[in-house]
Amino acid sequence: MSEHTVSSYDEELRELAGRVAEMGGLAEALVNDAVTALLSQDLEKAHKTILQDARLDELQQEIEAKFIRIVALRQPMGQDLREIMAAGRIANDLERVGDLAKNIAKRVIAIDGDLNSKKAAFGVEHMSELALSQLKAVLDAYTSHDAAAAQAVRERDDEVDAIYTSLFRELLTYMMEDPRKITQCAHLLFCAKNIERIGDHATNIAENVYFMVTGKQLLEARRKIDETGLADIENA
Amino acid sequence: MSEHTVSSYDEELRELAGRVAEMGGLAEALVNDAVTALLSQDLEKAHKTILQDARLDELQQEIEAKFIRIVALRQPMGQDLREIMAAGRIANDLERVGDLAKNIAKRVIAIDGDLNSKKAAFGVEHMSELALSQLKAVLDAYTSHDAAAAQAVRERDDEVDAIYTSLFRELLTYMMEDPRKITQCAHLLFCAKNIERIGDHATNIAENVYFMVTGKQLLEARRKIDETGLADIENA
Repeated sequence: MSEHTVSSYDEELRELAGRVAEMGGLAEALVNDAVTALLSQDLEKAHKTILQDARLDELQQEIEAKFIRIVALRQPMGQDLREIMAAGRIANDLERVGDLAKNIAKRVIAIDGDLNSKKAAFGVEHMSELALSQLKAVLDAYTSHDAAAAQAVRERDDEVDAIYTSLFRELLTYMMEDPRKITQCAHLLFCAKNIERIGDHATNIAENVYFMVTGKQLLEARRKIDETGLADIENA
Repeated sequence: MSEHTVSSYDEELRELAGRVAEMGGLAEALVNDAVTALLSQDLEKAHKTILQDARLDELQQEIEAKFIRIVALRQPMGQDLREIMAAGRIANDLERVGDLAKNIAKRVIAIDGDLNSKKAAFGVEHMSELALSQLKAVLDAYTSHDAAAAQAVRERDDEVDAIYTSLFRELLTYMMEDPRKITQCAHLLFCAKNIERIGDHATNIAENVYFMVTGKQLLEARRKIDETGLADIENA
């Protein structure tokens, strides 16, 4: 962060970043709780997770209000502007991560204890561990202004996608083998997709952290391939 | 829009709203093209749709830059601030609508002509017509500053959800009847979910238009029920 003669400005920027970090911690906890609730078929934990998401929405609104206030009062430029824009964009991504966690928790309730594809659930667990480690790493990179760590997160995004594609195929196989599992496997398909998207949000955050720290965009090459290709669509 | 002594300020606000309207028109076209490509199994149209989404991302970035510029230079308050914040939030929703359309287009390519569940495709078509009419109505409400029209859009959101829930069950039935249809029906499940989410974005936009025009939030009652309930999760 660049130095300012007005110390309350620094204070405002610190507060903004602090709120984003708070959102990040809460988003991580929600994803963890939702997946734990899914694996243990814990309906009570699922209900709690759903309710907690409201706090993320509140935090995002606070961040938006602070964002507007700082831009209007300080007319930030350069590094400061990048800090503030990154905070706003990362808060957007974290709010969506919370929605995805909430959606998984709702599916725990829809499945209602009828989850007997333990093997499939393990696949979801493995995938969620990786997505959560990505989310944690990128939030650390944000706090420590570590561009290299952010870049490493983005480069690992393919791993989550690869597990997702393999899990998608596995779930379709279970559906074909036993039609009674079709409903629960359909819910698991959506849970897996949600986790894959949580991984995508970690990647978005990584790109924003990189830009915030360096003022440069991460190379667009990988993304360009995805735009016209099917890298994020499971081909069964 | 309130009157300003500095006419270039009005010009800036008009330009911002014009860009949002442009995004809206493009987002509608992408959804329409993606669903048409799905129903006619038109791979070429699907590829074009995927490429066009990049323009939506560009427009969103332009809107974000204008947003920052106006807030920094004009320190907007009251009605002006609401106009500007609505523009930023609506641009976010429209960017996501474009992503969902792109995802449908990618699934057209993944299905690769192997769509023989015409009945299921009709369900998707019916749902997308309704979601598109919602999107069109809310964009008109934005342009004409019509709070009542925005409220009407939000009240019709349940209709898209109801069609989605029924389509979800229908698709699971097709899967159970004929395991060879499981893969294509899984892709259609995701297409249907994407369209349901496009309907949700129309609802978000409606809430923002209502707030922009009236300075009041739409009653939160319906939303509160959804937060703890499963209104947006299909129960098969």
